[in-house]
Amino acid sequence: MPELVNRQVLLAARPEGAPKDSDFNLVESPVPRPGDGQVLCRNIHLSLDPYMRGRMSAAKSYAKPVEIGQVMEGGAISQVATSNLADFRPGDIVFGYTGWQDYALSDGRGLRKVDPALAPISTALGVLGMPGMTAYTGLLNIGQPKEGETLVVAAASGAVGSVVGQIGKIKGCRVVGVAGSPEKCRFVVEELGFDACLNHRDADFAEQLEMACTEGIDIYYENVGGAVFEAVLPLFNSFARMPVCGLIAQYNVTELPPGPNQVPLLMRAVLTKRLNVRGFIVWDFAEQEAEFVDRVSGWIREGRIKYREDFVDGLENAPKAFQGLLQGHNFGKLVVRVSPDPTQ
Amino acid sequence: MPELVNRQVLLAARPEGAPKDSDFNLVESPVPRPGDGQVLCRNIHLSLDPYMRGRMSAAKSYAKPVEIGQVMEGGAISQVATSNLADFRPGDIVFGYTGWQDYALSDGRGLRKVDPALAPISTALGVLGMPGMTAYTGLLNIGQPKEGETLVVAAASGAVGSVVGQIGKIKGCRVVGVAGSPEKCRFVVEELGFDACLNHRDADFAEQLEMACTEGIDIYYENVGGAVFEAVLPLFNSFARMPVCGLIAQYNVTELPPGPNQVPLLMRAVLTKRLNVRGFIVWDFAEQEAEFVDRVSGWIREGRIKYREDFVDGLENAPKAFQGLLQGHNFGKLVVRVSPDPTQ
Repeated sequence: MPELVNRQVLLAARPEGAPKDSDFNLVESPVPRPGDGQVLCRNIHLSLDPYMRGRMSAAKSYAKPVEIGQVMEGGAISQVATSNLADFRPGDIVFGYTGWQDYALSDGRGLRKVDPALAPISTALGVLGMPGMTAYTGLLNIGQPKEGETLVVAAASGAVGSVVGQIGKIKGCRVVGVAGSPEKCRFVVEELGFDACLNHRDADFAEQLEMACTEGIDIYYENVGGAVFEAVLPLFNSFARMPVCGLIAQYNVTELPPGPNQVPLLMRAVLTKRLNVRGFIVWDFAEQEAEFVDRVSGWIREGRIKYREDFVDGLENAPKAFQGLLQGHNFGKLVVRVSPDPTQ
Repeated sequence: MPELVNRQVLLAARPEGAPKDSDFNLVESPVPRPGDGQVLCRNIHLSLDPYMRGRMSAAKSYAKPVEIGQVMEGGAISQVATSNLADFRPGDIVFGYTGWQDYALSDGRGLRKVDPALAPISTALGVLGMPGMTAYTGLLNIGQPKEGETLVVAAASGAVGSVVGQIGKIKGCRVVGVAGSPEKCRFVVEELGFDACLNHRDADFAEQLEMACTEGIDIYYENVGGAVFEAVLPLFNSFARMPVCGLIAQYNVTELPPGPNQVPLLMRAVLTKRLNVRGFIVWDFAEQEAEFVDRVSGWIREGRIKYREDFVDGLENAPKAFQGLLQGHNFGKLVVRVSPDPTQ
């Protein structure tokens, strides 16, 4: 058997502002052989997610950055090719942080079997994976939606926002989405069933938001920041909740926006409206994973939660696709097809 | 009997920036006679509190502003002079929002009897009143102090901060106060038992705070805003909590500070450190009032909570005293002696 090639996307440089092609490096090396207690995984679907921008920077955050020259970090669905672990057999479909590459070794830690009978395996990266669980845990634990309340969801057509809004509808909220194009807004209303969806690129976005939220805003699910947040702030009702799981609009920003400094305005709103602003990452609610998979897969089967995936073919296209993700060019959960899906 | 005079401090104008003498108007009128279902109260101790600055402004907040020409709003300890209500007898000591005046009518709503045997009646405006309950409810419900954590308390010698820090000590926290003079800092450490207290007017305050919080900050009890908050923000630990009950440093500010706009920095900290920033007012926890009085009065009797009052004589001096309060000129809970305390 000829030696197989492992293509890997390495972090070549820490981006200044928006990542560019030269911040990544596609290299080839022989596929590694698993040692004792290891499995070799062949990646099928690679997840691209906004949090990866944080891993490219040296700035302190909740997780360590990827080092220069290391394989870019990422969750993926893969198939076990060779196994020296009792728990995994060749052919098993698994989820793990196997990274931006064709093949990865694993000692089994963080590797989790995925049941192809439950749903298409790619959904374990999206609606039934980390983004879906981010939506579920942040909305229910922090957002605490109540019937009749108004929920505003940023990045509403995306992997997280689409699930947030649909759960909001299930909980009886009036749900207003915010997205980045007329096509996305149409999808969010017509396919996902939000009550309204506004294009944040419209010049009169703030006025549109006020008109769409005549009863004020009780929950703002924040994963964007920037201008969307500024338009939301004056519309908050007393005791509004704001789960914060991402700030994609500011990830590529290299300097703070010009003045005045709006922090006193924000804090005044926190005080006078008794806002609850709380940051989280999905693993803060790790113990809710089984409940999440159970409930959301049930809602999918009942047709109450829909999802959309945006597939890009070829590992070599991952850097470009990731750059586009940070600009909102994707439409639905962004997934790179690294190799053919054997379950389809 | 000659007709008694009722002196009243009216709101004469909405302040631009810091309130000044001409924003208040001291007038005299006959003491009103209580009608059916009313009591006449003679004020003894008038409470001056930072929240009153909000009532002087027309800006939307959690409570309606005082109208121009109306009596300034305020809580006070008074004695029932005449009663046409079954629940109150002449001589009763009561707490109520009887305002900046010598005498007030009340229909009994919001009037609460104060037991002079429990503690000096003035404490029902401070450590056993609204400020003490603000400290108690905000720290325990939102701050959620755990043994060994670091708690930073702004305005540490004040009516709220002094109680926050002492409860923090009871809960086993390392407590670092922030106050506005060396005398206040000494009092906070030597009398109240905080582990440290820093003067926010020192040029190297931020460095001092970092040195005093070598393990980071788990709870910041915010009632000040401005430069103190800016120094705290970089020191937060993951999952830090920030109850926000006041922002005295920005109440008199008429324009936002110059740029850059620091909101993205704040939101980045919220996200990456999973902060919980939550505004509240004491009445959000109204159902905890009995528990608060019971526990804090117990701690006072045991010598575990101490308090300091700053008395000003004469209703006519209330406007000046209030102006000083917003500048931090008081030292302890600010109380105006409107008339002699009959229980002393």
